[in-house]
Formats: sequence, structure tokens, C-alpha cells
Amino acid sequence: MSATASNSSKMMTSPGDMFNLENPVFCCYLFWATVLVVKMLLMSLLTAVQRFRYKIFPNQEDLFFKNLEVQFDDPHVERVRRAHRNDMENILPYFIMSLIYISTNPNPAVACNLFRVASLARIIHTLVYAVYPVPQPSRILAFATMLLITFYMAAVVALRTLTYV
Amino acid sequence: MSATASNSSKMMTSPGDMFNLENPVFCCYLFWATVLVVKMLLMSLLTAVQRFRYKIFPNQEDLFFKNLEVQFDDPHVERVRRAHRNDMENILPYFIMSLIYISTNPNPAVACNLFRVASLARIIHTLVYAVYPVPQPSRILAFATMLLITFYMAAVVALRTLTYV
Amino acid sequence: MSATASNSSKMMTSPGDMFNLENPVFCCYLFWATVLVVKMLLMSLLTAVQRFRYKIFPNQEDLFFKNLEVQFDDPHVERVRRAHRNDMENILPYFIMSLIYISTNPNPAVACNLFRVASLARIIHTLVYAVYPVPQPSRILAFATMLLITFYMAAVVALRTLTYV
Repeated sequence: MSATASNSSKMMTSPGDMFNLENPVFCCYLFWATVLVVKMLLMSLLTAVQRFRYKIFPNQEDLFFKNLEVQFDDPHVERVRRAHRNDMENILPYFIMSLIYISTNPNPAVACNLFRVASLARIIHTLVYAVYPVPQPSRILAFATMLLITFYMAAVVALRTLTYV
Repeated sequence: MSATASNSSKMMTSPGDMFNLENPVFCCYLFWATVLVVKMLLMSLLTAVQRFRYKIFPNQEDLFFKNLEVQFDDPHVERVRRAHRNDMENILPYFIMSLIYISTNPNPAVACNLFRVASLARIIHTLVYAVYPVPQPSRILAFATMLLITFYMAAVVALRTLTYV
Repeated sequence: MSATASNSSKMMTSPGDMFNLENPVFCCYLFWATVLVVKMLLMSLLTAVQRFRYKIFPNQEDLFFKNLEVQFDDPHVERVRRAHRNDMENILPYFIMSLIYISTNPNPAVACNLFRVASLARIIHTLVYAVYPVPQPSRILAFATMLLITFYMAAVVALRTLTYV
């Protein structure tokens, strides 16, 4: 019986079962994915702040003030919307890529640090794009950091599963 | 042998293994995530309906009728596209957030009702934004419902995994 | 002990545990999801190529050449951006839908071929939309292929989990 129990507990940490709270890599993913989800949702609220500050609304039913017309192409609102779209283009594929990367049972130190660096890079990206614009190449570097990390994870997963093409 | 079997079957419902059809919370997620995926994809078809109804096409190769030019900024088409973009901004992060929230083994009644309310709120959001526009704050309330539910799940997951920062 | 081991190894392939590298359907998903993630991220780089080729930049801090103004609505850049947005609208929901579809333990040959056809269809979609525009209905057919596959997976998952509504 004790041999069986130890066999079972070993199975829990075997490569077959990575998506649970006993796997520190998955826990680290949980934390940083949550940070990025919250960051992305705050972009919606930042857009709303800009809309009310500059009184720029895109729908007839949103005209909360008198004598307003629907209006588009305000540079302050559009800057936040471009940053938000860039988040969707990069963070959403990263969510899937990093989640499935966990299933390859990567080295915990490598995987956790990739999650941390990628997440911090995107927070910096938002700051230098939507909150306080600063000269390039700050935004390009922040953008490239997550992009390269996602490409690295893609290479790991693709090489591991190449026989299933 | 029977002791081993009962040990194994208990393991299947342990917190270590939440993403399977024996977990009612995961099954409830499956159903409502599927509803939202279908709802999102129908936005593409609704955009196409509006494009054909008002003969507004953005590409040269899409001009299915004679004497047409490519055209943008039609209010009927753009309204559906804004609603669709808002779906991507909110529902796609919610898909990841609610999926990883399941791994924290939440109370089944709480989790399932959050899935139900969030999904119904976004269906209402689409109806009052893209199908039949009604005065505010109907859309703001529908929008805020899923947003707050996602923030709640984020708080649960972040507090649970804070030591992996 | 050997009876226990065979029991455990059978458990690994039971419907309860689909998201691991011992499940060929999951491995096939890993490979093709990775291909689509890379394809999507390359759209960002293709947009950048078009921006530098036609010197069209949307932000003041991006004006890398003298005597430039921020500029929008360039047809070459906007075409790539429309293709990229279409990717987000269709591939991102597909990522979630096909991932959860695996949990229903589908027939491996059916599932793997759906992943392959859907992915190839979206690669064709990008080629005929953003790289080398060709007459319709090539793009509509490529678009409809992944859409119908996602709807099929949605039907399978929804029917299986209908009691959790």
C-alpha cells in the first residue's frame, strides 16, 4: 500500500499532469496571467477616462452632456485604443502559448522568469505608450521582449510536437 | 487492490485535477464558454449582414455589386464592429481568467453562477449595443457585470498564487 | 504491484486527463495552435514592414524619418490591419473552443484533421488577404472553413454539457 501511495504521488508531478496548483510553474503562470488580464481590462477604463475628459463619444446613446455630437479620431482617445489593440494582438496569443508551453514540463526557473519578464515588459509597454509617451525605442523594446519570449515558447512546443504535424 | 482503486478514484477529484468532465464547475465553464464563442462568431456574420444590406465593403475584391467603391465609416457597420471589438477586449481575457480560476477549486455554486451571469450579461450587451440600441446605462451595466466578475476571479487567483510573484 | 501500475497507466488515458503529452490529440493541438500563434504574431511584423515601406506612422514618437507627419488610412497598411483583426476575431475564440473540445475525448483522427484543416485555412486566408490579394470567393471560403469547424466543436461541447446550463 505504501509503495502504491508513493507511486500515485509521483504520478501527480509526472509530465502527464501539469495544470494544477502543485506545479509551481503553473502557479507562477496563474499569478502573472492574472496581472496581465487586469492590466488589459484597465485599458477599457483608461479609454473611458479619456472619453469623459475630452467628451469624445462614439455612439448617439453615449452623449452624456448637452450639445455634443458623436466624434471619432480624437488623438488622446485613439492613442489608448491603439495601445489596447496592441495588447490584444500580443498578450492574448501569449496567454495560449505560455499555457500550452507549461505542458512541455519546462525548467521551472526558466519558465517562471520568462513569465515575469514578459509581463513586466508589457506593463512598461502600456506606460510608455498610453500613459506617458516617451521617445522610441522604449516602446519597440518592450514590444519585442514579449514577442521574442512567445517565439521562444513556440519553438520549444513545436519541436516537441513536430511528429504530430 | 480495492483500496488502491478507491485511492485512485479519490485522486481524480482531488484539487490537482480540475480540468475534466467529472468536475461540474469545468462542465459549466465548457457550456457557457461555448455559448460566448458562438455569440462572438455571430458578430462576424452580423457585420457581413450589415455590409451587404448597406453595400459597404472595405476591399476592392469584395465589391460584389456594380458601380461600387470601397467605403468605410458607415455608422451601421461601425456600430457592429465596435460591439465586436468590445467583445474581444472583454470576453477573450475572461475566457483565460475563468479557465484558470477553475484550478483554484472554487465553490461550485459560486463559480457556476458567475459563469452564467457573466455570459448572460454579455448577450444583453450585444443586444443593446449592436442589435437594438437602447438608452444608457443599459450597456454600461451589462459591460460592468462581466468586468467585475473577471476582477473578482482575478483577486481570488492572485491571492492564492501571491507567493509565486 | 504490476496490476496497480497497469491501472494507473490506464488512468492516464481515461477521459479525466486529456491535457498532457501522452494524448496525441492534445499534442496535435499543441503543434497547430503554435503554428497559428506564430502566424498571428507575424502579422504585427508585416504591419511594421508596410509602415516602413510606405512611411506611415500613427504616433508622433514613431516618425523615424524627417519631414513626416502622423498618418492613418493608408490602404496598404490598413489591409494588413484588417487581416490581423480578422485573425483576432476568429483564431482567438478558436484557440479556446478547440482546447476545451479536447476535454470531450473526441475521435483522434477527426480532431487532428479538424486542427490541420482549420490551421491551413487560416494560413491561406492570410495569403489571399494580406500578402497577395486574389479575387473572391477565395477569402470567404478560407474564412468559412475555420468558422464552420469552430461551430462544429461548439455543437459537440454544448451537447455534451447541456445539463449544466
